[in-house]
Amino acid sequence: MPDTRALLFDVFGTLVDWRTSVLQETAAVAPRAAGRTPDWAAVVDDWRRAYRPALDRARAEPVWRDLDSLQRETLAEVLERHGIGLTDEDGETLVQAWRRLHPWPDTRAGLERLRTGFRTATLSNGHVALLVDLFRFADLRVDAVLSAQLADSYKPDPRVYERGAALLGVGPGEAAMVAAHADDLQAAAAVGLRPMFVRRPQEWGPAGGQEPPAGLAGLVVVDDLVELAEVLGC
Amino acid sequence: MPDTRALLFDVFGTLVDWRTSVLQETAAVAPRAAGRTPDWAAVVDDWRRAYRPALDRARAEPVWRDLDSLQRETLAEVLERHGIGLTDEDGETLVQAWRRLHPWPDTRAGLERLRTGFRTATLSNGHVALLVDLFRFADLRVDAVLSAQLADSYKPDPRVYERGAALLGVGPGEAAMVAAHADDLQAAAAVGLRPMFVRRPQEWGPAGGQEPPAGLAGLVVVDDLVELAEVLGC
Repeated sequence: MPDTRALLFDVFGTLVDWRTSVLQETAAVAPRAAGRTPDWAAVVDDWRRAYRPALDRARAEPVWRDLDSLQRETLAEVLERHGIGLTDEDGETLVQAWRRLHPWPDTRAGLERLRTGFRTATLSNGHVALLVDLFRFADLRVDAVLSAQLADSYKPDPRVYERGAALLGVGPGEAAMVAAHADDLQAAAAVGLRPMFVRRPQEWGPAGGQEPPAGLAGLVVVDDLVELAEVLGC
Repeated sequence: MPDTRALLFDVFGTLVDWRTSVLQETAAVAPRAAGRTPDWAAVVDDWRRAYRPALDRARAEPVWRDLDSLQRETLAEVLERHGIGLTDEDGETLVQAWRRLHPWPDTRAGLERLRTGFRTATLSNGHVALLVDLFRFADLRVDAVLSAQLADSYKPDPRVYERGAALLGVGPGEAAMVAAHADDLQAAAAVGLRPMFVRRPQEWGPAGGQEPPAGLAGLVVVDDLVELAEVLGC
């Protein structure tokens, strides 16, 4: 097995806590919302659940669209389903809230340590501009901000993982995918990347986080990025 | 005129001193070189001069090629012209030397200050993997490592500048190109980017550096990146 030379990181849920962060931002728009008093946690969770099907639909479209555009559509659907009326401005505040997500407590220090031993990059379905703004906001550092955008697609399209490794100048077998989501790691491992699972038990609040994928050869499982740095000898 | 929100930086010559750095590396291979005793400074300068014509030829090819591949070819031509024989390994040392270029004395501090006020990114004809390695070596930081590679082309193709701005989520008029080379700024300004010239009088050693482009509206001219940060109020 070739040595691992590069680490690719999923972002939403893996590096940053989207749920708590977006919920905080709904508090700002809540006083102006029309309709019944919403269960904002349910709205945010439903919005997040609408993400993957929206990406799957978008992959079938001929022209690549950025996450802002997709999130604007899914937010409108979810608000309607919950009987909530928001002004365009308040809706846009929530769409832009994905640039203001707080990192998990271990993320900043973990990324710094991992960068001493490996080339590091994001590999997110968020577009480059969103990731740049988010990393500035959260004060996080990787060597390169890479995105599914650079493959004109979205994860779990195999081309996204292949493109991520290629842009870092390594073969798929020399790259690892670090994520809190089983499907991301399964897709990455299918094209030869080494799967590394980070448990994020708070990702969905009371509903918990995902379990590691079953039956994935060479799977590394850690509780946070500092532990990952220790496991990898950084 | 819209506010500038993003700064795109040329790399070779603008942020890093390719000439002194590559010359240092020729000293390591020189004892093993066959043929007459070469004027290594002339070799390095000729190699660098071969860069632009090589990119222009490569732009006409159907498949994009990375800078390592192009530099390997131009080095072989230049060595032959100078009557120098190098082993493949020593030739590869020189090709890889472009990942080990030293920054100008103001570069690190200037980039850090500029990053406080603007989204910053490289926009180089070097490929992403080379730039990632170079920025790790030189301990430099930008928000995003962008390359002509991401437009499947090379500067001064207008699409490279447009793609750079778009990937940072800004219009061409909201981006500035920072470079020590007149042709880079002329091409960037032609698609609407704001031109910012950094004097690098040591770029070509005794032969000096380039003069700012003539007749370019809104041109900013500075002596280094710390002065640029002052001019831009960072």
